[in-house]
Amino acid sequence: MSFNSKIKTIEWVNNSSRMIDQTLLPKEFKTVDITTAEGMYKAIKDMIVRGAPAIGIAGAHGVALAAIELSKTETDKENFLNKLSLKAEYIKSSRPTAVNLMWAIDKQVKLAKETQGSIDDITNALIENGIKLENEDIEINKKMGDYGAQVVPKGATILTHCNAGALATVGYGTALGVIRSAFAKDPSIKVFADETRPRQQGARLTTWELTRDGIPTTLITDGMCSYFMSKGMIDLVVVGADRIAANGDTANKIGTYTVAIAAKYHNVPFYIAAPLSTIDTSIKSGKEIPIEERNHEEVTHINGDWICAKDVNIINPGFDVTPNELITGIITEKGILKPDFKESIKNAFN
Amino acid sequence: MSFNSKIKTIEWVNNSSRMIDQTLLPKEFKTVDITTAEGMYKAIKDMIVRGAPAIGIAGAHGVALAAIELSKTETDKENFLNKLSLKAEYIKSSRPTAVNLMWAIDKQVKLAKETQGSIDDITNALIENGIKLENEDIEINKKMGDYGAQVVPKGATILTHCNAGALATVGYGTALGVIRSAFAKDPSIKVFADETRPRQQGARLTTWELTRDGIPTTLITDGMCSYFMSKGMIDLVVVGADRIAANGDTANKIGTYTVAIAAKYHNVPFYIAAPLSTIDTSIKSGKEIPIEERNHEEVTHINGDWICAKDVNIINPGFDVTPNELITGIITEKGILKPDFKESIKNAFN
Repeated sequence: MSFNSKIKTIEWVNNSSRMIDQTLLPKEFKTVDITTAEGMYKAIKDMIVRGAPAIGIAGAHGVALAAIELSKTETDKENFLNKLSLKAEYIKSSRPTAVNLMWAIDKQVKLAKETQGSIDDITNALIENGIKLENEDIEINKKMGDYGAQVVPKGATILTHCNAGALATVGYGTALGVIRSAFAKDPSIKVFADETRPRQQGARLTTWELTRDGIPTTLITDGMCSYFMSKGMIDLVVVGADRIAANGDTANKIGTYTVAIAAKYHNVPFYIAAPLSTIDTSIKSGKEIPIEERNHEEVTHINGDWICAKDVNIINPGFDVTPNELITGIITEKGILKPDFKESIKNAFN
Repeated sequence: MSFNSKIKTIEWVNNSSRMIDQTLLPKEFKTVDITTAEGMYKAIKDMIVRGAPAIGIAGAHGVALAAIELSKTETDKENFLNKLSLKAEYIKSSRPTAVNLMWAIDKQVKLAKETQGSIDDITNALIENGIKLENEDIEINKKMGDYGAQVVPKGATILTHCNAGALATVGYGTALGVIRSAFAKDPSIKVFADETRPRQQGARLTTWELTRDGIPTTLITDGMCSYFMSKGMIDLVVVGADRIAANGDTANKIGTYTVAIAAKYHNVPFYIAAPLSTIDTSIKSGKEIPIEERNHEEVTHINGDWICAKDVNIINPGFDVTPNELITGIITEKGILKPDFKESIKNAFN
């Protein structure tokens, strides 16, 4: 049984990529239309669109936008394909950690190279494939949600970190997709949302999209999770992922690892919800996942205002890696993968 | 060897209690003069003055202010003492978790009852004792600092949570006193300061007072501690305390417990720095420590601005309790107490 969420985060409309501007939420709900590869690079970099699955689709749209642009001036197919590849690499460089971006862009570039016919035929194929990936994303999330809902006890309180919701995908969500499916079965479940400093995606986005869908949500600050676990007030943790290694080590928003350690200490089950496209079987462990260093103002400022002394040092890793030993299961569209993850991940791809 | 910090957080000046208004830092440095018991209740409640040892002194000053006020109208000593006790209880109710407040106020009330002579004699005794407790606080912190510095390895990076600094005491600090003493011995030590949401005392106060004293400080968000521990970038944790039970369980600012769990997972030593007046031997374990529930706007707003959806639920515990099993040692003015804390705490009071 799946829940009906009305949020559509990213959508191909009239030869442009229409997306909710997530930097304005929860104060303002507004969509923007992206029409160039450069515009897409900036939209991803500035987190107008964010969340691994959503930026995968954004990447696919970005390659289609590049093709539309190039098709206006290029007449030689080889030149067209070479320039398209360069633009594709450029879009990839906007966020280094999320593997879905690389996955979706590589899919588009491969399709461009393999498509027979004219430059226009290739361009149309890229547009159609972008739309197809969009639709698949929602279907995959609903499958994940249904699998995930099976591990949610009746009346459970679920803690989540950052936003792995409809806003991190085309719609429905990964971790929040599990919550939506669980809520559809059992309206007595509740959610605790970590604020998720520095960018506050939990406060800004998760509380917005869950309360909009009528799911009872309590906002807590990031340091509070252990307190509520020690009081028996959290039954399980479900979070998303930006990249999963072949052994199950999982990169996700900074702070996830801290929650996972707290969950282990309190014997609270800790689940990752992510499509198979987030699993990067080319890397053996989390040690190989690049961690993006982000703008220092994300830490020193909130809403444009200084919050600390001015001569302080800052290190601002965007992600951390939760080692597989802290993970109870990885909820995918092909079922819930369990330890030993090296084995279960390998089997999921066969 | 002790470090020379110029910060004086609270000071008895011209029959009033002069304090740095900590709600304005780091943007504005301003002192306010409190002249009534009611003014002191509000100053403590609104966290103009905060930090367990500092609000202990504030409580002592508050009783002296109440005595000055009552001495203007009361002529009967018994009436004076009864009304003084009521005002003392009223000041106590401003913050329920910090035991130093109760400790200092009880000391003053006992002194008032035991002082021979006139109402004016009692009032003068309370003023003098307030000043004496002030001076003792700095001496105690310097002793703690010197003991604590012995466990700081050469070139260490020390993580701290919230503000247990000069601003949490009369001056010098408890956890930050340890850091000041360590820095005086070894200028290559560095500090990582947790932001400490919701009230951001780490960002606002700790970065302000440490950088003002020239100690290199890196501000991190609360969820990041595990990431830096996993990279071997944190050598030990030192935090303050609001109340310590007879078995060593320690109440401190919300989020401390999460840091302690992360430290345990990474085998990073975790120290509490607190004067013996923070130890409440009347309670057996942390289960008996009341946890203050604070204003919900501390979570939903930053600098007066909403950061989340408006129909979200909030629970805002001001403190959490770190169980003794996660604590490496308690740094006091009588040396470093080690497990078994039940034993070492009992011995410290003999």
